[in-house]
Amino acid sequence: MTTAELARNRNETTTEAPEALRRDMEAMGRRARAAAAVLAIAPPVQKNGALRAMASAIRVRKAEILKANEADLEDAGMLAASFRDRLTLNNSRVEGIAAGLDEVAALPDPVGAVMAGWDRPNGLHIERVRTPLGVVGVIYESRPNVTADAGGLCVKAGNAAILRGGTDSRRSSAAIAACLTEGLEEAGLPGAAIQLVPTSDRAAVGLMLTGLGGTIDVIVPRGGKSLVGRVQAEARVPVFAHLEGINHVYVDRAADLDMAVRIVVNAKMRRTGVCGAAETLLVDRAVAATHLRPLVAALKGAGCEVRGDFELQRLAEGIEPATEADWSTEYLDAIISAKLVDGVDGAIEHITRYGSQHTDSIVTDDAAAAERFLNRVDSAIVLHNASTQFADGGEFGMGAEIGIATGKLHARGPIGVEQLTTFKYRVRGNGQIRP
Amino acid sequence: MTTAELARNRNETTTEAPEALRRDMEAMGRRARAAAAVLAIAPPVQKNGALRAMASAIRVRKAEILKANEADLEDAGMLAASFRDRLTLNNSRVEGIAAGLDEVAALPDPVGAVMAGWDRPNGLHIERVRTPLGVVGVIYESRPNVTADAGGLCVKAGNAAILRGGTDSRRSSAAIAACLTEGLEEAGLPGAAIQLVPTSDRAAVGLMLTGLGGTIDVIVPRGGKSLVGRVQAEARVPVFAHLEGINHVYVDRAADLDMAVRIVVNAKMRRTGVCGAAETLLVDRAVAATHLRPLVAALKGAGCEVRGDFELQRLAEGIEPATEADWSTEYLDAIISAKLVDGVDGAIEHITRYGSQHTDSIVTDDAAAAERFLNRVDSAIVLHNASTQFADGGEFGMGAEIGIATGKLHARGPIGVEQLTTFKYRVRGNGQIRP
Repeated sequence: MTTAELARNRNETTTEAPEALRRDMEAMGRRARAAAAVLAIAPPVQKNGALRAMASAIRVRKAEILKANEADLEDAGMLAASFRDRLTLNNSRVEGIAAGLDEVAALPDPVGAVMAGWDRPNGLHIERVRTPLGVVGVIYESRPNVTADAGGLCVKAGNAAILRGGTDSRRSSAAIAACLTEGLEEAGLPGAAIQLVPTSDRAAVGLMLTGLGGTIDVIVPRGGKSLVGRVQAEARVPVFAHLEGINHVYVDRAADLDMAVRIVVNAKMRRTGVCGAAETLLVDRAVAATHLRPLVAALKGAGCEVRGDFELQRLAEGIEPATEADWSTEYLDAIISAKLVDGVDGAIEHITRYGSQHTDSIVTDDAAAAERFLNRVDSAIVLHNASTQFADGGEFGMGAEIGIATGKLHARGPIGVEQLTTFKYRVRGNGQIRP
Repeated sequence: MTTAELARNRNETTTEAPEALRRDMEAMGRRARAAAAVLAIAPPVQKNGALRAMASAIRVRKAEILKANEADLEDAGMLAASFRDRLTLNNSRVEGIAAGLDEVAALPDPVGAVMAGWDRPNGLHIERVRTPLGVVGVIYESRPNVTADAGGLCVKAGNAAILRGGTDSRRSSAAIAACLTEGLEEAGLPGAAIQLVPTSDRAAVGLMLTGLGGTIDVIVPRGGKSLVGRVQAEARVPVFAHLEGINHVYVDRAADLDMAVRIVVNAKMRRTGVCGAAETLLVDRAVAATHLRPLVAALKGAGCEVRGDFELQRLAEGIEPATEADWSTEYLDAIISAKLVDGVDGAIEHITRYGSQHTDSIVTDDAAAAERFLNRVDSAIVLHNASTQFADGGEFGMGAEIGIATGKLHARGPIGVEQLTTFKYRVRGNGQIRP
């Protein structure tokens, strides 16, 4: 959903949903719950077979998917270029979607993995075993690829998925979802394990946020701040999400200048629109004289606008004035705010006050300063001498991610297949009773 | 809180809280948040010093605590015997509270533990490290010991706690809380790390359930079904809880009869008021002729009422009639419902339909039947050849627990110190940038 779509619709969804829609959606929830029970005990070979069959169906039905996408794009004529780009499919993007499903099939199966096991003095053997979460609701913008990415990850983790994509991509998403259903059924699994909400009625989102009569276990929103903000504010079920990534790179007095320049430019400019992009540069006041100018020059050389307070503007050329609001702004653009701080403690203080607990990095050769930063910055991901753009499930070795969470409960950081599971305790005895 | 207290008050708390109370509670939340930041980085020796100082303060101020408890008991004259018993303190119970804090001090410190670590091909070293959750809100009935148990566990895990105990125990809880504050301050930690809500105004509970302006990270309710049900229904922050423990023991065709009798009687009768007590006995129809009578006789011999349907009543003597409602009833009393099922799949079906995903046990010598039950019953704790009464953090070797959760997110099963933590990713590099 775009911001405008959400704004148009905000009132509508908080009011009563039409009774027929509620009935339909709750029936969808019950089908998902029943499918989840089957998925939960499906052997890995069957789930992976389904994922590969989905990939194959997408390849086979490529023309159909592209045609649906053309129709979506036609309707979407008036939209911004970036929005249009996200909505657009082509040969290589469709192949990318299929390849993504094959990659998920190749990941290790998380279900049934023994996370810990121990013996008790009375002879009981206790194990903590990974189990699926149940039913995952995914609410996303008009990015057709998310239909397959999210559906595939949920199935791999033994869950059922209820997907609600943006209205502007409805035909593309439906064409892809048809391939997912086909893949599931080909492998003998219930097609209802991945269901796409078939209506454009925005009240459907509101119903999902209530949990559909207890059938949805967790909601994952994928999209911009307005979508995530609404989901976090209204959801009556747990949400895995991050609202924004106000990420910092702190260049310490003991930083290697060349490394700092390389990391800062990469953290900000590699891709400015991703949630792991840096938004604020913090420089240790002790090395302002030597480090600030080269950092600013490199950023400007890479095409980045640098905003700083009066102190910074005196120390380097071409710095735009920053206001208080800049410290809490996620630009997602070629703009960075910059500030001098008093050493690592000053950096920690600034990040604690303005950060969004997403991803923060320190550049230093001082091991003690690094430890202090890594321990005290309470963010999902903290890095030492590395770019914030590594905030990504793939880069973490998780294979694929459905998003990044900054909440503290259950999933924090990249949300991969393991984060889409829960656990239970399996206890084996030989007749033990409790005294 | 008692059911009556909750009922009296239900409307009150869903309406607007008085402005002054809201202000006071939100200030309490901010103090907790500030204290949590200090606790999060406090070394184990300091936290354990605080816990031991709390224990010592409780021993020193025993007379004061008992006097406060006498005043509470005087006011509580009209209450039920079981309620009165839970409220009552005496020398040995106060010593038990102090000893509990010493035991928590002796537990391994969860904070900073590396849960997993791995290297990436680009040389990044990634670790998943345990960190505190932040601020834990605990809402409990008139059991003064919970003040110390919950406060101590939260501090051990590096969290701050906001405690709201039952009104009838307010003086006892306040006397104990004063000792906790003393212990914290003696160890150089902020006293606000454990705060007892000082007012009997029930609107305070409603405010805690909203999260106190984002300062409470999780709520743990400790008490009966009405308290937990209200918290689950109204909370706008995550809740670790179980509503009820409708636990089953399934006696399979391949069960050793002596073992089955021992386990069933223990699971039901060791203590009938705990959440791990069995409430329903399921017997494999294949061994009804041989196993049912001895099981029923043993239960009745131990003083337990057995309720069953017409089929059961024909097979054994002295069985009271069961209605449909019995299968979903948590008696917490010397009553058990009993039913014949068709093998392990019949048991799984019954448990899936009527259980509460708390704790379920199978008695069998058939390894395949046991595996099927352990894999397919989706409860927090599943046991093979052991009593359901082992559903307890202490029995699991966790040292102490603040409760048992049946939700699927974050904490499931016993909630010990580890379950009161979260984690972050610590990434160490030597200049890595993302291509």
